[in-house]
Amino acid sequence: MWRELEPLGRHADSGGYRRFAWTGADTDCRAWFRAQAESRGLRYELDRNGNQWAWLGDPAAGDAVVTGSHLDSVPDGGAFDGPLGVVSSFAALDELRGRQVRFTRPLAVVNFGDEEGARFGLACVGSRLAAGQLTVEQAHRLTDADGVTLPQAMERAGHDPDTIGPDPERLARIGAFVELHVEQGRALDLSGDRIGIASAIWPHGRWRFDFRGEANHAGTTRLVDRHDPMLPYAETVLAARREARVTGAVATFGKISVEPNGVNAIPSLVRGWLDSRAADQPTLDTVVAGVEKAAREYAQAHGVELDVVRESFTPVVEFGHALRDELARILTTAADLTVPVLGTGAGHDAGILSGTVPTAMLFVRNPTGVSHSPAEYAAEDDCVAGVTALADVLEGLACR
Amino acid sequence: MWRELEPLGRHADSGGYRRFAWTGADTDCRAWFRAQAESRGLRYELDRNGNQWAWLGDPAAGDAVVTGSHLDSVPDGGAFDGPLGVVSSFAALDELRGRQVRFTRPLAVVNFGDEEGARFGLACVGSRLAAGQLTVEQAHRLTDADGVTLPQAMERAGHDPDTIGPDPERLARIGAFVELHVEQGRALDLSGDRIGIASAIWPHGRWRFDFRGEANHAGTTRLVDRHDPMLPYAETVLAARREARVTGAVATFGKISVEPNGVNAIPSLVRGWLDSRAADQPTLDTVVAGVEKAAREYAQAHGVELDVVRESFTPVVEFGHALRDELARILTTAADLTVPVLGTGAGHDAGILSGTVPTAMLFVRNPTGVSHSPAEYAAEDDCVAGVTALADVLEGLACR
Repeated sequence: MWRELEPLGRHADSGGYRRFAWTGADTDCRAWFRAQAESRGLRYELDRNGNQWAWLGDPAAGDAVVTGSHLDSVPDGGAFDGPLGVVSSFAALDELRGRQVRFTRPLAVVNFGDEEGARFGLACVGSRLAAGQLTVEQAHRLTDADGVTLPQAMERAGHDPDTIGPDPERLARIGAFVELHVEQGRALDLSGDRIGIASAIWPHGRWRFDFRGEANHAGTTRLVDRHDPMLPYAETVLAARREARVTGAVATFGKISVEPNGVNAIPSLVRGWLDSRAADQPTLDTVVAGVEKAAREYAQAHGVELDVVRESFTPVVEFGHALRDELARILTTAADLTVPVLGTGAGHDAGILSGTVPTAMLFVRNPTGVSHSPAEYAAEDDCVAGVTALADVLEGLACR
Repeated sequence: MWRELEPLGRHADSGGYRRFAWTGADTDCRAWFRAQAESRGLRYELDRNGNQWAWLGDPAAGDAVVTGSHLDSVPDGGAFDGPLGVVSSFAALDELRGRQVRFTRPLAVVNFGDEEGARFGLACVGSRLAAGQLTVEQAHRLTDADGVTLPQAMERAGHDPDTIGPDPERLARIGAFVELHVEQGRALDLSGDRIGIASAIWPHGRWRFDFRGEANHAGTTRLVDRHDPMLPYAETVLAARREARVTGAVATFGKISVEPNGVNAIPSLVRGWLDSRAADQPTLDTVVAGVEKAAREYAQAHGVELDVVRESFTPVVEFGHALRDELARILTTAADLTVPVLGTGAGHDAGILSGTVPTAMLFVRNPTGVSHSPAEYAAEDDCVAGVTALADVLEGLACR
């Protein structure tokens, strides 16, 4: 299974994956999913929002157990973020068939479309559309770096964009959704456990800081005559790290856009994006308010104007205790595992669905904690332990 | 004259000029130059390197007095940097004809090609080729952002690229070159003078700082596990400003390139370009060594690798004292002007030619000091004073 998926969308230079929504690489991954479904005799469905489903049993019976993740990637992403959950879902189904269990609930494997948001700038588009957390009007306004809109991209990839929209009936058939994911941190590595259960997704948001100064000649403009927006930007980057450190949050300036971006030109505009997340809302508010206050002071000191725009925000997602406790019970009973319960700073389709459907997540140990990079990794033993744990969970939920 | 030149290559949105070498806007500017030459009965010549000449008298007589500048621009540049020198040259010639002077030396107006280097990344290509400071092989390797080479661009614009190369005979005919230029700073504004004379072009260079860290997820990676290259970059930007301030130099980080440049990704690479210039070589060396030392310490503290590459360097250009003193004498005698002598941080064709030909520069006051921007400006009175001063200089040099 891995062998066929591995080369799709892999970039020769970086070794990283570039599986962006509705591109050729995405189409190849989708074809792989469909082939996996059909080779197992599962009923394949593509829903109105481009999410793929592989059904065992009759979805109309309701109270289905669904597992899966996504196949798209960030730019030069790793092999595990997303695909590990999809591959493990099919492998767990194979394992359950080997165990000759009897299914009492319908079961499905799902591949949610455009989870990473690498192309259109918004994460979890497939699940957001289905859950009604993204309106059709908003989806129509999504545009990639080349000016291609989401509907245009869907159409070029052979998907009818006129069908997109909320899908409450489909979600109402789901009794439980379990997403297995490579851990994007080192908590399991530090605690010495292979598998963990998610407690919550930290609240997080993205803020755009536009520092507007005055373009000028870098060789002839006296320092005192400058309004160089790169300077308050630099000070703000350092302030964000300080605020995150003292509060136990994370804060990152990872994206920047500079005009005119010439070696011999003082910039007229430095636009930096702050990504920040924290264990709870008050802490996140403290961090962002602290960064913004510092940025305003620095900007003023350099005679630079500052606009701060919140581009996106997701409140804290607490996974329901009932399903989470059931997973812990199944895993400790079936395999005598200690299963730590972890918070995470990353968004997931599971977080989107958790408002509508009982939802839980399993994490597989990542020895380096690296993700969104070709260095992202999970050891084969741990991946196998993940499949076994997921099979145990599915058996516990769907074969009672 | 201005009225016909003004609309050429002006961008409707920014109001700035985009007159890049060997583009349609450049061709239009060249046609304007030729028309100006011919309407004055001057002999028009296009040299092997694409520089345009308008001759009064016989160039073969030697010891010619040449004046002029360039017509190309930086991206969204102003109306004065370059064109003021060319327009003032024709206007000064008109003024001298009005004075009915008798020319004892041949005189020419020149438009040097590709002074700004906006398209191919190297400044003063026309004068460098002529002076042998850029070899034909090096010129053949120059490529624009779309992958078009300089020879291809020349050919498309109707210029035979096989002719380019050193032009010592042409330069040997020049006895003096005087370039008039809008000041790119506020020295004349602060001293209250309309016109200044250049003493020297500061030594300057460009250094690329590559900070290589580790790409990772901005939401899930603990601060202590990060190798975020944006942090030492930010610290280095601030260090550069400090070093420049204490030494009286200038230092600017105006261009940056980030990989993968995603909002939720800790960067793997932050590449920043330092432009630095100082009144003398030891000061410049001190600034750059100080910035590099600080950058290495910051990079090490964050577990980030650093490479520093010097991408270009131009040593100090001292304009010859003989011609410079003669200009000062002419201007103080003819017009009873106080003419301050100024250093400048900007490169010019005059700087390239000064190694081969006696060369001088006149500056016209710029009330804001802004250049390389649509806000670049010189008052009409000051422009007229510039034409008069240039006419006085040409009369003093060519009509003795």
